[in-house]
Amino acid sequence: MTPASARSWWGWGTDAARVDGAEAVALVERVALLLPGHDLTDHAPPDPRSLGVPEPRVAPPAALAPLCSADVVDRLGHARGKAFRDVVRNLHGAAAHVPDLVVRPRTEQDVVDVLDWCTVSELPVVPYGGGSSVVGGVEPRFDGPAVTLDLAALDRVLEVDPVSRAARIQAGAHGPVLEDQLRPHDLTLRHFPQSFEFSTLGGWLATRAGGHFATLATHIDDLTESIRVVSPTGVGESRRLPGSGAGPSPDRMFLGSEGALGVITEAWMRLQRRPQWQRTATVGFTSYDAAVTATRAVAQAGLYPANCRLLDPAEALINAGTTVAGGLLILAFESADHPVGPWLDRALELVGDHGGEVLATRDRATGGDGGADASRSWRSAFLRMPYQRDALARRSMVVETFETACTWDAFPAFHAAVTAAARRAIDEVCDGRGVVTCRFTHVYPDGPAPYYGIYAGGRWGSTLTQWDEIKAAVSSAIADHGGTITHHHAVGRDHRPWYDAQRPEPFGAALRAAKAALDPTGILNPGVLV
Amino acid sequence: MTPASARSWWGWGTDAARVDGAEAVALVERVALLLPGHDLTDHAPPDPRSLGVPEPRVAPPAALAPLCSADVVDRLGHARGKAFRDVVRNLHGAAAHVPDLVVRPRTEQDVVDVLDWCTVSELPVVPYGGGSSVVGGVEPRFDGPAVTLDLAALDRVLEVDPVSRAARIQAGAHGPVLEDQLRPHDLTLRHFPQSFEFSTLGGWLATRAGGHFATLATHIDDLTESIRVVSPTGVGESRRLPGSGAGPSPDRMFLGSEGALGVITEAWMRLQRRPQWQRTATVGFTSYDAAVTATRAVAQAGLYPANCRLLDPAEALINAGTTVAGGLLILAFESADHPVGPWLDRALELVGDHGGEVLATRDRATGGDGGADASRSWRSAFLRMPYQRDALARRSMVVETFETACTWDAFPAFHAAVTAAARRAIDEVCDGRGVVTCRFTHVYPDGPAPYYGIYAGGRWGSTLTQWDEIKAAVSSAIADHGGTITHHHAVGRDHRPWYDAQRPEPFGAALRAAKAALDPTGILNPGVLV
Repeated sequence: MTPASARSWWGWGTDAARVDGAEAVALVERVALLLPGHDLTDHAPPDPRSLGVPEPRVAPPAALAPLCSADVVDRLGHARGKAFRDVVRNLHGAAAHVPDLVVRPRTEQDVVDVLDWCTVSELPVVPYGGGSSVVGGVEPRFDGPAVTLDLAALDRVLEVDPVSRAARIQAGAHGPVLEDQLRPHDLTLRHFPQSFEFSTLGGWLATRAGGHFATLATHIDDLTESIRVVSPTGVGESRRLPGSGAGPSPDRMFLGSEGALGVITEAWMRLQRRPQWQRTATVGFTSYDAAVTATRAVAQAGLYPANCRLLDPAEALINAGTTVAGGLLILAFESADHPVGPWLDRALELVGDHGGEVLATRDRATGGDGGADASRSWRSAFLRMPYQRDALARRSMVVETFETACTWDAFPAFHAAVTAAARRAIDEVCDGRGVVTCRFTHVYPDGPAPYYGIYAGGRWGSTLTQWDEIKAAVSSAIADHGGTITHHHAVGRDHRPWYDAQRPEPFGAALRAAKAALDPTGILNPGVLV
Repeated sequence: MTPASARSWWGWGTDAARVDGAEAVALVERVALLLPGHDLTDHAPPDPRSLGVPEPRVAPPAALAPLCSADVVDRLGHARGKAFRDVVRNLHGAAAHVPDLVVRPRTEQDVVDVLDWCTVSELPVVPYGGGSSVVGGVEPRFDGPAVTLDLAALDRVLEVDPVSRAARIQAGAHGPVLEDQLRPHDLTLRHFPQSFEFSTLGGWLATRAGGHFATLATHIDDLTESIRVVSPTGVGESRRLPGSGAGPSPDRMFLGSEGALGVITEAWMRLQRRPQWQRTATVGFTSYDAAVTATRAVAQAGLYPANCRLLDPAEALINAGTTVAGGLLILAFESADHPVGPWLDRALELVGDHGGEVLATRDRATGGDGGADASRSWRSAFLRMPYQRDALARRSMVVETFETACTWDAFPAFHAAVTAAARRAIDEVCDGRGVVTCRFTHVYPDGPAPYYGIYAGGRWGSTLTQWDEIKAAVSSAIADHGGTITHHHAVGRDHRPWYDAQRPEPFGAALRAAKAALDPTGILNPGVLV
């Protein structure tokens, strides 16, 4: 695992991996081309020790003191997630709502003890996995003291069942940490969100994270066999079951609970063998409507591609370096059991029926490249995106994403309304200097999960409010046109107004009642969900 | 739809379709062969009007009176589900716990009005779909008055979205009724539980029913896009979304809620085009262990067969008329989009690796039969099973099923323990005269859903207690060896003791709190779940 000390307190990932040198020069050149006249002055982050972070307002009981850190940089590093608005506030040295202590349990009993202390003291506690939230999920955005419960030390794969292909894994394990422990068993969870390196199993479960697969197991939910939870009123674990119909699913109540109902300490997760066969194709379209229809045809064909990512022309240009008039579809099939040629062949027939032109194909088994491979460039770009976002934030750019899902039927009007709202907001708050991009991250038989990017020229000192205005305009368009306020980034604090409107009330009442039953003093992550 | 008047008040389905004539003769002959010496006297059901059903203890408000039936046969027909224990009690004329009224809302507002009346009157109300529960889910098994809310008149497909392939369907629609309305759109829900003809969409949703597909969309849950619910404290509807990560899933709280949290009035369901390509194979094994391993290999290969049903030798003999030493695997692949040859071919390679011998194949596209087709005989037998169960119940047989799921790792010990418990119970309460069968109804990468059948010789007047003893012994074995007390039959009242032990406590507290919030006077289906 990346040692905590190497992590950037203000931005994505590690300081060592930040955009620098030639990458920075190239990035700046691209922005200069895209938004001529934008002020590209680089604003470095402040010295965290200069920000006047107040002393902790709480002291732990002696027994818990060895788990607690009051270090200023540690606390600042846990004060926020990694959304654009978090990074910008860090760059400006805004130090409100810093947790008083970072508590690092080493055992589940430590978690129980911390919750007991916090319950008795009515002290809010923010469960924290990798801290990669982009929705204000880990920020103690309220008055009064707070502690952050950093679960990263609970990072072991405790048990592997090779017959059922499942493993019991502690919730604090970061992506690479758990994959390293599964590799000797020739098994993999294969859940690869963009945050993979800097997020944890528990964080994925608590936020219903979206992963590698464009179809079928799109969310971590689908890979979950059972969950173990510590709530202020008790500890419990669901039974390991491949499927069940015994009442409402217990796990589904905690999946997406964002730390408001309990602390997930471990889970049995469904695993797979590593894929031996992979076939990939990139397909170009001259019309976006045709590209969408072709993608829908694949999503409804029962072929279940591992990847089915439709990039609009702006996204294809900016992040895959490919010029297409209508769209670029990246298709991939993979299997640990059998060659997937017939699957890809049929998908390519379908997209061909809608005017798609195959630009490149790749067959991992043969190693052959059938042309320039936009899917590979896109994947490398994918992992660098958050780092580049930070580099741009330092240069007064407004760069952020929003993601959603809607039905295919609704998509054309939805997409028009959302992009119009984004464009209008960019016009109003960024003098029209900006780009809106869209890709599908996941596709379902009944609809896509579109993921939008904003790249706009801001003014240093104003980019936070500029983004907030764009975000509000776009979120309202999403809500008004039948989308979900989040497909896989979670609700956190940033999505609350739209989530509250989206959540059907009988369920809202049930959730509030559940919260009151499990967390009667309301210490768990106050401000999220309920 | 089958008119309500044609339904059997005491047993499965319609009176007209009951086992009679040559089918009855053949059935009796088979039992005589299987259990020589068993008393096969046929005990006809009593005249329902002779059972002394008391007059209704409640009177509806005038506005609701036109929706209410106090007819004795109507009330008796709604007093129980269709489990063996329900049928036996009916055959013996036991008339306790008959609802005072059967109320048939014609609109959602009627449902609201009925719940308002019941809330004010603190009158328990049992939501009722097709009444096919085999777990005591619709029986007002408590003291005092009760009304049954029969939703069958809410039976329309209200809207079809052909682009997203989804439809808004009222909850009271029986299987054939909703399929008839979808057929003109060339779409199908393709959810085919054994109860298909005599169960409703709302019942499937409330009980997390298992359907047609052995993999992927095994439960109705997976076909659900949004749900509309009337609870005593409010009406609400989740948003139509192909996927979402906005907090815990609202729908998953009501899926499996068994009428205890609210009345489901309609839902948007995901549909499919009718399959054009189907390939089926039946595969024989000489060893059950090898058959299980082969089935696991298919389940873990990412091939997603529509059918993957492993029958043990007793099940194969009794219900498919096929003699195999180790097991019979019925495999089927289907698609509306593409030929499925490569899928079946790979599955047959896998089962071949484990000693499976292909006995027959069938290709719907070519119409060709590759041999005697056990899969077809099995399917016809499948739909007659509940009727035959009734015919046997009339002849003092103890005939019932129990179903579960567990991990592959646990299955060998689990299966040994469950069958041993069943055999031991049959030895103790049925003098050893009986057969235990097993089939897998659904398979997952991490485990199978085994479905057990009991065919034992009872004594007239004692078969109810004989079954209850077998059921208790087997249920405890399931619970002790890591299974779920139900994979798709629901909890109802019959599974409560084991469900209560299985449900993890933090979730139990959340569920009780949710129930109190949505149904503060506790009128909704008292006795199920909480």
